[in-house]
Amino acid sequence: MKFAVEGQDGSARAGVLETSHGEVRTPTFMCVATYGAVRGVGPDDLAAIGAQMLLANTYHLHERPGEEIVKSQGGLHGFTGWQGPWLTDSGGFQVSSLAHRASISEEGVTFSSPLDGERRLLTPENVVGIQEALGSDIAMVLDECRTPVPNAGNPAAETARRVEEAMERSLRWATRAKRARKEPGMALFGIVQGGVSDALRRRSANETVAIGFDGYAHGGLGLGEDRDQRVEMIGVGNEALPTDAPRYLMGLGKPVDLLDGVAAGVDLFDCVIPTRNGRHGVLFTRQGTLRIKNARYKDDSRPPDPSCDCPTCKSHSRAYLRHLLKIDESLGARLASVHNLRFYLALLEQARTAVLTGRLESLRRDIEATAGTVDD
Amino acid sequence: MKFAVEGQDGSARAGVLETSHGEVRTPTFMCVATYGAVRGVGPDDLAAIGAQMLLANTYHLHERPGEEIVKSQGGLHGFTGWQGPWLTDSGGFQVSSLAHRASISEEGVTFSSPLDGERRLLTPENVVGIQEALGSDIAMVLDECRTPVPNAGNPAAETARRVEEAMERSLRWATRAKRARKEPGMALFGIVQGGVSDALRRRSANETVAIGFDGYAHGGLGLGEDRDQRVEMIGVGNEALPTDAPRYLMGLGKPVDLLDGVAAGVDLFDCVIPTRNGRHGVLFTRQGTLRIKNARYKDDSRPPDPSCDCPTCKSHSRAYLRHLLKIDESLGARLASVHNLRFYLALLEQARTAVLTGRLESLRRDIEATAGTVDD
Repeated sequence: MKFAVEGQDGSARAGVLETSHGEVRTPTFMCVATYGAVRGVGPDDLAAIGAQMLLANTYHLHERPGEEIVKSQGGLHGFTGWQGPWLTDSGGFQVSSLAHRASISEEGVTFSSPLDGERRLLTPENVVGIQEALGSDIAMVLDECRTPVPNAGNPAAETARRVEEAMERSLRWATRAKRARKEPGMALFGIVQGGVSDALRRRSANETVAIGFDGYAHGGLGLGEDRDQRVEMIGVGNEALPTDAPRYLMGLGKPVDLLDGVAAGVDLFDCVIPTRNGRHGVLFTRQGTLRIKNARYKDDSRPPDPSCDCPTCKSHSRAYLRHLLKIDESLGARLASVHNLRFYLALLEQARTAVLTGRLESLRRDIEATAGTVDD
Repeated sequence: MKFAVEGQDGSARAGVLETSHGEVRTPTFMCVATYGAVRGVGPDDLAAIGAQMLLANTYHLHERPGEEIVKSQGGLHGFTGWQGPWLTDSGGFQVSSLAHRASISEEGVTFSSPLDGERRLLTPENVVGIQEALGSDIAMVLDECRTPVPNAGNPAAETARRVEEAMERSLRWATRAKRARKEPGMALFGIVQGGVSDALRRRSANETVAIGFDGYAHGGLGLGEDRDQRVEMIGVGNEALPTDAPRYLMGLGKPVDLLDGVAAGVDLFDCVIPTRNGRHGVLFTRQGTLRIKNARYKDDSRPPDPSCDCPTCKSHSRAYLRHLLKIDESLGARLASVHNLRFYLALLEQARTAVLTGRLESLRRDIEATAGTVDD
């Protein structure tokens, strides 16, 4: 994997990432295909909206269908039909999202499977092996993504201690992950942790860089901290990261969060918001978000976003989309997801152009101004 | 609407139906888009698999979103983006499928809506008006589709009496429907009823023809009668129907049922089997039906049907389709539906060619021989 920065605007960068399955122009958004498919959205739809790279989940694919099956079908590329690059998340986030089923030891994370109750152990080593079997272009190290919230039974000092422990364990795991890699064609990214502490984020970033990875991610954000804290944490991390490696902000967020990330020097993003909101009838537009199930759209013949170039906006009206989502017709979820994904992809295409022309701040202000809804 | 028979093979016909929205080569299968959308399948998918005409449901669209909204969006064509012809079913079938919510009088059918509990009256007249508002190319008359089953509490003589009454009421309603039509561009089809009685079917067909419609349908079949009875009823009806008008077998069926219909001189078909079976992972192939969730397909890299030309078979393996359906991913339902719809459309394209070359019986024997499953 190669990465070249082509232009900058303050801390923001426009770059090109060369993967084993093609070039990716950054900054960009990766559509989330947890189990190897974006819900209801086919590879043809994804190509039509300019998707460059998809993201799948190691833990979930390990459970179903299992990496050996994916491997036997030519990896994620052959199995799913998406021939562009794939990034796979490690399963570290499931330590948090499936916390009630996860127990952590120095060896790794043991999940009690929601499918069959069996115990499944993910270690820094086997997570790299699974991602190699999946044929990932970019693999993530296993991290301990812990986000304890201070409260009466969980005082701030105790919380801070746990975040520090998780960050330190993630560093030890990162060292083991790097040693475990066998497949030279697969890039491996380290993950910066440390909650909302400047000091911990800085230490985590420095020590992750010292281990040495093909790229770096900011983990454990978008989980309750406020916007200023988040921007600060990304900035602190990026100061320590090498400028010639790609940076990935995991799991975030709303349009303005992505532009905050770009402004702070992030190159890659992923989030389930476009598809999840789409399924619920919340559409992103350049005028703000639009709740398409609202009765006011029942006979609105305009496309969801008149300025959008996606297949949904080219062929369908608000009235039809509202009807489909009101009757729970899956075509509605698909059309809304396609539109929202295009909004995210286009937003980052615009951000890239803005970086190259020194106008990122103006784009960010435009998007900030439309953070509300248009139909309240 | 014009209809021309281009070739015959026994009673079977190959024809061309000219509608207000383009030509339809018959025999053909209409994909079912009850609420104005084939579940999960977009107009782009439908065009790619050679769909010619879609079928929507008057009763359901009357409830949601209401015909006035559809009308305000340019009818079904403008509203849904499917610019080819639309046939709309009248709601007569809902007399049977929503029997617990329907009460019948000479005036019409009153449904207690499952949505809001309100009473909605469908009459022969307003059903024509609704279909005119929907912009249907082909409308169906309201009929009383009753299929009482003889049993201990419902003796055969009583059953026969009710079928006869329903058939006679359907004739009176057909007369009223014909008088109610205002839109000359919309074709109106009559419906032959009469259960499984030769005498009733013959009388119904003769009297429906005497009223005079643009085309004729066989209603109330595929509801429990055996194959021989069904073929006989279609034959009896067709003897009475004019040869220069299109004939439509409503709601049927399995592949072999369609070929039985073609052999008996039917031109149009519709059925939910391809999409419903697809969602459940039952795929039609020229080797028989394939239950894709079966474990034997978990690493089968062949397309669902190696001889199929659909987008699913061109791009995806049995292993991927099985995975998607096992995890309830809606892309799986879409890909399986697209495949099954293509199977049905292609089957009738093959039937058309077979009629024109005098080989229909050979095709029917081929399909009969593959009526089982390939994975038992």
